[in-house]
Amino acid sequence: MRNHLYSVILAGGSGTRFWPLSRELYPKQLLKVLSDRTLIQETVRRVTPLIPAERVLVVTGAQHAEAVRFQLAGAGVPKANFLVEPIGRNTAPAIGWAAEAIRRRDPEGIILVMPSDHIIAEDGEFIRAVELAVNVAQEKWLVTFGIKPSRPETGYGYIQAQPKRLLQSQDELTALAVARFVEKPDLPTAKRYVRSGKFYWNSGIFLWRADAILEETKKSLPVLYSGLSRLGDLLDTPDQARAVEEFYRDAESISIDYGVLQKARRVAVIPAPFRWSDIGNWRSLEEVADKDQAGNVCIGPILDLGSQGSILYGEQRLVATIGLTDMVVVDTADATLVCPKDRAQDVKRLVELLRERKAPEQLIHRTVQRPWGSYTVFEEGPGYKVKRVTVTPGGRLSLQMHHKRSEHWVVTAGVARVTCDQRVFDLHVNESTAIPLGAAHRLENLGETVLHVIETQCGDYLGEDDIVRLADDYGRSELKP
Amino acid sequence: MRNHLYSVILAGGSGTRFWPLSRELYPKQLLKVLSDRTLIQETVRRVTPLIPAERVLVVTGAQHAEAVRFQLAGAGVPKANFLVEPIGRNTAPAIGWAAEAIRRRDPEGIILVMPSDHIIAEDGEFIRAVELAVNVAQEKWLVTFGIKPSRPETGYGYIQAQPKRLLQSQDELTALAVARFVEKPDLPTAKRYVRSGKFYWNSGIFLWRADAILEETKKSLPVLYSGLSRLGDLLDTPDQARAVEEFYRDAESISIDYGVLQKARRVAVIPAPFRWSDIGNWRSLEEVADKDQAGNVCIGPILDLGSQGSILYGEQRLVATIGLTDMVVVDTADATLVCPKDRAQDVKRLVELLRERKAPEQLIHRTVQRPWGSYTVFEEGPGYKVKRVTVTPGGRLSLQMHHKRSEHWVVTAGVARVTCDQRVFDLHVNESTAIPLGAAHRLENLGETVLHVIETQCGDYLGEDDIVRLADDYGRSELKP
Repeated sequence: MRNHLYSVILAGGSGTRFWPLSRELYPKQLLKVLSDRTLIQETVRRVTPLIPAERVLVVTGAQHAEAVRFQLAGAGVPKANFLVEPIGRNTAPAIGWAAEAIRRRDPEGIILVMPSDHIIAEDGEFIRAVELAVNVAQEKWLVTFGIKPSRPETGYGYIQAQPKRLLQSQDELTALAVARFVEKPDLPTAKRYVRSGKFYWNSGIFLWRADAILEETKKSLPVLYSGLSRLGDLLDTPDQARAVEEFYRDAESISIDYGVLQKARRVAVIPAPFRWSDIGNWRSLEEVADKDQAGNVCIGPILDLGSQGSILYGEQRLVATIGLTDMVVVDTADATLVCPKDRAQDVKRLVELLRERKAPEQLIHRTVQRPWGSYTVFEEGPGYKVKRVTVTPGGRLSLQMHHKRSEHWVVTAGVARVTCDQRVFDLHVNESTAIPLGAAHRLENLGETVLHVIETQCGDYLGEDDIVRLADDYGRSELKP
Repeated sequence: MRNHLYSVILAGGSGTRFWPLSRELYPKQLLKVLSDRTLIQETVRRVTPLIPAERVLVVTGAQHAEAVRFQLAGAGVPKANFLVEPIGRNTAPAIGWAAEAIRRRDPEGIILVMPSDHIIAEDGEFIRAVELAVNVAQEKWLVTFGIKPSRPETGYGYIQAQPKRLLQSQDELTALAVARFVEKPDLPTAKRYVRSGKFYWNSGIFLWRADAILEETKKSLPVLYSGLSRLGDLLDTPDQARAVEEFYRDAESISIDYGVLQKARRVAVIPAPFRWSDIGNWRSLEEVADKDQAGNVCIGPILDLGSQGSILYGEQRLVATIGLTDMVVVDTADATLVCPKDRAQDVKRLVELLRERKAPEQLIHRTVQRPWGSYTVFEEGPGYKVKRVTVTPGGRLSLQMHHKRSEHWVVTAGVARVTCDQRVFDLHVNESTAIPLGAAHRLENLGETVLHVIETQCGDYLGEDDIVRLADDYGRSELKP
């Protein structure tokens, strides 16, 4: 049965409520939150004990596809397994496309659907729950994973179980039939749900046979289903790209929960034996992060005197706090957030304001990841910009030129192979060179240690879009033949 | 009478409770708080409508003397008017020394004593109050300036007036005889004082004849007085430096309030017609800063949604706040502080912790002021440090060499005159040079605009103490003949 198990990882989210850690170009799934891996890397790592990378499919948007592919390069997910949506249409079309692709590859295929930007604290328990779900799904149940609610959250959907309809069990794990789904209830209702003991948060993690979810889609969303069938017929043909475009152009934007699950008959819920968070906002970090004795979550260089119940997050700079109660403090290289925990959902409004103002703090980070490494902007002023450029071993930037800026490089670690027009030479630590405006140049790390270059740019215009890529290892060349 | 008026500015403070804006090497008086000038520059500017710079004396500690002199270079305070204390001994010895110096220069001398790190909001009103004080002081009263208390502050000294003993008045300004002084009362007492209407905060601003304060010092602190007399005899002689050393070695550490004023008979108080703050901690900024409609003090790039009664202070980075009530948020280049307003005095404890840990965030800022301009550290990592060096027109760094580091310079604004061993040359925008380890070098700005240089240092040791000054315009040369 395990040989038929696939995972579909949904990586289309934007996650504005996790600002200033998340940015428009760096949604939650691309960030490291409580680990050395990003959330999407953690998600893939979490499923691989059961599901090899060749059977992991990733659905993502065009805007983040390059970054998602890059982050999963080391995990062995084949290129063909990345399903790139031209526009976001919520989860029903995304899951439908993946289910079509899997069913045609394996008519017995079973799919574990995983959001890419959630945290699960106990991986072993998660695997156990998936194993039970696989058994239940074999009987054509659509299996959901329910989280025992720790508070009357009004931002989640709830699943009402039928405690007396036990479908299967395994040790203390149970799978129950679902009575109904409820979308974001009001506070009194949510409180009643929590008290009742019959309701679970809908984690957005699902497991079902590909044919079962497609059958239910056919019943509940027949238009979407016929679009999926047309798309399915053209998958792995030269017309696939066009078919995807057309499918998304016409597809209804609807969630799998609302569009299919709420109307389906055979839906099961497995109460999750693991701690889970969708880290939908800063407050929800509490669900999965370790706390100190005063109930604070402290991450980074925090110096605290007597705070309690607070979430304190720093990156490089010192964050000093005194006597806070139930507050959120998040300190990043270019922006700081301070708010009470119960206002964490309003971060979304802040981000909207910043977007209206076209503030860079909404769009990007001071440190920008690239396929070859990263760069960090130290300062940009009139006529100049100063960066640290970090190139991983074997990485090289595109062969490029700039129309409006010169660059000065000083190597502070590693060895740089520099191309500047006709010249190719190595630059060692404490050596420098200047790249004149208009010169075709490239920076490359042939060594086995990380290369650090301090780059000072001079020019009237210093935007990142002043770049002509003459050749690129990562498919980003803009030179048309 | 005005020709006999002097000002003594006390610049010995350390101000740990204003961290992270203040640092051990940057006490409050050296900082810009609500203005483009630093607090000590504002203090000198405030008195100069009445008192020319030649009659302004500044008492400061050895640790901050260079910075104080540099900051007041433009104000025209003569070099001989800086009284540099070898060790801090509280205000009585400092004021005593200044009074001796003034009495010997002008037996009719009248002294306006001003702390250098306070803020006064209405300068015109301040001048009016000083003018009344001068009239009162002529009758050998020691005049204090009292602040009508806005809250039962337990951190201040209080002055009880005798409302029926009106000494002089001028328009609505009055000078009243003082009944007594009270040091930091407990909260119930402070509340009673505020209700009574007879008590004022002791602002630490005083005005008296030099002979009058010395007479009272003789009565109350006879040992200190005889030390002052010995010191006075050697002022302006070749033995002055030694005399100052001896005086401070032996002098009792005591405040003028406790040591002299509390025992004196003829003490007056003028209820201040101006808003005042000693900005002893972040909370006290409220006394003098403008507030928005919700009662927030917002300084710098703040984006707020619905906070009230809070003090929000940023420098360069974006500070985003939601729904704060009575909080303090201070964001600087290398450290952020968040605390409730009523815990602002506990910042002192934080600073003590940081000092124990030898944290750089306690000692210095990322931007360090120098006589020739300033530098800002962008990043320090293994083997390298990156700075922006800013040189004011006419400024030049010392001719110097380093034993353990090389430097790479890129000019991003202005023109640099560079000396590197035997070579002297100009570097324009977008030009660069390298200073090898061991080379005698100098950076100089002969132009009329500010010079900006991006400096990348490479070496095993990058401490600021790896410097041999071969020649220096600012008396900092360490080359012994």
